Amino acid sequence: MGILIDPWGSFLIKDYERLIGEYRIEPFTKELLEKLPNPNKLMRRFVVFGHTDLQRIIKAIENKEKFYALSGIMPSYDKIHFGNKMVIENLCYFQNLGAKTFVCVADLEALATRKVKLEESRERALNFHIPAYIALGLDPKKTIFYFQSENEKAKNLCFAFSSKITTSEFKAIYGSLEASRIISSLLQAGDILFPQLENPMPGIIPVGPDQSPHILLTRDVAHRTKSMFGFIPPSAIYHKFTPALNGELKMSKSKPQYCISIPEEEDSIRKKIMDAFTGGRFTLREQRELGGEPEKCTVFELYKQHLVEYDEELNEIYRKCKNGELICGECKLMCIEKMLKFMKNFEKKLEKARKIVDRLKFLK
Amino acid sequence: MGILIDPWGSFLIKDYERLIGEYRIEPFTKELLEKLPNPNKLMRRFVVFGHTDLQRIIKAIENKEKFYALSGIMPSYDKIHFGNKMVIENLCYFQNLGAKTFVCVADLEALATRKVKLEESRERALNFHIPAYIALGLDPKKTIFYFQSENEKAKNLCFAFSSKITTSEFKAIYGSLEASRIISSLLQAGDILFPQLENPMPGIIPVGPDQSPHILLTRDVAHRTKSMFGFIPPSAIYHKFTPALNGELKMSKSKPQYCISIPEEEDSIRKKIMDAFTGGRFTLREQRELGGEPEKCTVFELYKQHLVEYDEELNEIYRKCKNGELICGECKLMCIEKMLKFMKNFEKKLEKARKIVDRLKFLK
Repeated sequence: MGILIDPWGSFLIKDYERLIGEYRIEPFTKELLEKLPNPNKLMRRFVVFGHTDLQRIIKAIENKEKFYALSGIMPSYDKIHFGNKMVIENLCYFQNLGAKTFVCVADLEALATRKVKLEESRERALNFHIPAYIALGLDPKKTIFYFQSENEKAKNLCFAFSSKITTSEFKAIYGSLEASRIISSLLQAGDILFPQLENPMPGIIPVGPDQSPHILLTRDVAHRTKSMFGFIPPSAIYHKFTPALNGELKMSKSKPQYCISIPEEEDSIRKKIMDAFTGGRFTLREQRELGGEPEKCTVFELYKQHLVEYDEELNEIYRKCKNGELICGECKLMCIEKMLKFMKNFEKKLEKARKIVDRLKFLK
Repeated sequence: MGILIDPWGSFLIKDYERLIGEYRIEPFTKELLEKLPNPNKLMRRFVVFGHTDLQRIIKAIENKEKFYALSGIMPSYDKIHFGNKMVIENLCYFQNLGAKTFVCVADLEALATRKVKLEESRERALNFHIPAYIALGLDPKKTIFYFQSENEKAKNLCFAFSSKITTSEFKAIYGSLEASRIISSLLQAGDILFPQLENPMPGIIPVGPDQSPHILLTRDVAHRTKSMFGFIPPSAIYHKFTPALNGELKMSKSKPQYCISIPEEEDSIRKKIMDAFTGGRFTLREQRELGGEPEKCTVFELYKQHLVEYDEELNEIYRKCKNGELICGECKLMCIEKMLKFMKNFEKKLEKARKIVDRLKFLK
C-alpha cells in the first residue's frame, strides 16, 4: 500500500501554511486522498498540498459525470521547469480518469505581458512546448491543444467578464492595475471557462500556489455571470514548488545556478546537484552518528517530487539517510544518475513527439 | 460657390473652443476646407470644427494614395441619433473619394460596457443598424461591415497594445480604471488599426469630440508599437454635437423630450419641434422689428446640420430670420415638414436596405 500521509515532513512547510491562509487554499487531506482512485505520487506524498473545491471533481469521478482538466503553456522561454512537469503529471492523472483535457498556448498573454510576438510563441510551442507536454505523459490523441490567439470564445468571454470585477478587487488580487495584467487575467478566466460554454461541467485546474489568485478570480467571475452563462466554478489542486538547489522556496530562472530546467546539459546537472544544499551534517562522522535531515534536503525533494516513482524506494532512501547509512556525496551521485536518466528519456520522447505535432488537431 | 466660413456663428462655440484646448483637437480651418475636394455641407458649414492630422489624408487624396475610413456601430439601442448621421455623412464623403471603408459593429464593447449579449447585438445590427447606415448613404458594395467579436486581428492587437499604456495614462484619459473601459478602449485601438496590418496606410476616423480620447490613445499606441507593426497614426475629424431641443449642448436619450432619434414617430416630432428652444424674441412685434437670433436657435441648427442640403436655401432662411420676415411658428412648421420628409425617406431606404443585408459580405 502507498504512503498516505507525508512521512517526511513538508519542505518549508511554514510557507505553505501561510499560503493556505492567505490565498484561501483548502488543505489537501488524507480523507480527500483516499477518495481519489489510484492517486499519483505527488498526491500520495502530499506534494499536492492544497485544493479548491476538489470535492466537486471527486463527485464527478464517482458518478461518472463528464468533467474537464485544463492547463496552459507560457511560450516565452525555450525550456520548461519542474513546476510544469508537476502540472503535467496531475493533468495526466485526471486525463486517465476520463477528463476532457485542454492545453492552452498562452501566446496572447506572452504578447501582453512579455511582448513576445505571436509567430514567435507559435513556433516555440510547436517546436518544443507541445512535444514536451506529450513527452511528459499527455496522450496526444486525447488532448486538445490550442492557441489563445485563435480561441475566439475565450477572447469574447474576456470582454464579458471585464465588467464583473471591480478596480479595487483587481488591486487586492494583483497589487497592480496594469492593463496587460488585468486583460491577461480576464482572458485566463475565459480560457478556464470556455469548455463549459455549450455544456456546463466541473473542471479541474492543477497549478502552483502562485496561480491561486487566477483560480479565485475565475470562480468569482463564474458566480457573477451565472445568469448569463451558468458556468460551474472551476476546481483546483495546488502543488508545492520544487525548491531551488540553495534551499530557497522555488527554483527560478533568475538564479540559474540553483535551478535545473528541462532539458538541461549533463555538465550543468552534475555541477548544480553536487553543489546542492542538503540535510547533511557538518562532518562525515556526525552524519554517520546522527543521520541526515532529508526534511531539509533539496536533493531528497528532487527524489520525492520527480525522480523516484515508487514509494518503497523513496522510503528506503529516507531510512538510509536518517540512520546515517547514506551520505550526501553518494546520494548526490545517485541523484545525478537519476536526473540524467530522466533527461535522456525526456529527450528521446521529445524527438518522437515532435514527429507527430503536425498531425495534432488544434482547436480553431 | 459654397459658404467658406461659418456665417452664422457657432452654436455654443465656447464649448468647442474648450474642447479644442482640452483634447488637443486642431481647429478645422478655411485653408483645410479649401484643400478638400467637394466638401460636404458639414465641412462647408464648419459643423466639422476640428481635426487631428487631417493633412495626412489630404495628401493621400492629392497623391491618389490608398487610405481608409472607419467607424463603429454601438448596437445597444434600437435607434440611432443625429450624431451617427453626421458620422455616416462624413464617412460617405471619404468613401466617395476612394477610401476603403470599414464599419465595425461594437458587439464586444456593448457586452463589456453595457452587458448586452452578443446574439442580441448581432440581431439588432443586422435588422436595424447596418441597413440604417446604408439608408443614410453608405455604399453597401464598397463598405466592409464586421462584428468586433469576429475580428481576431483587432482582438489580438488589443493584447499587444495592453502593455503600451500606463495605468496613469488611462486614468488621465478616462478618469477611471474600470477593466471594461480599459479593455474596450484597447480593442477600439485594435479596430482602428487592424486595416493597416498587411499594408500600413493613412486612415480617417470621423467622430464626435467626445471620442477624441480614443483617437489620441490610438495614435499613442501606433507610435509606441512602430517597431512591431509600423502603423500610421490615424487621422480624425470632429463634428459638433446636434444640440438638444432645450438648447443644451447635446441631444441625449436620457432627456427624450429634447431629443429626436432616427427613426421617430410623427406626433412626437411635431410636439418636440413645436416646443424647441429658438432664437425668437419675447413678442411677435419685437421679432418683426429686431429679427430672430438663429445663432442661438436649435431649429436653425437642425437645418444647418441635417435638413437643408443647399447653402443658398440655408442662407435664405438665415436672412429671413435675421430681418424679422420669418417668425418662429412658421419656421417650426417648416422644420417639422422637412424632418417628416427626412424620416419618411429614411424609412423607405431602410426597408430597401434590409433586403440586401443577407447578401453583404462580412469580414471573418
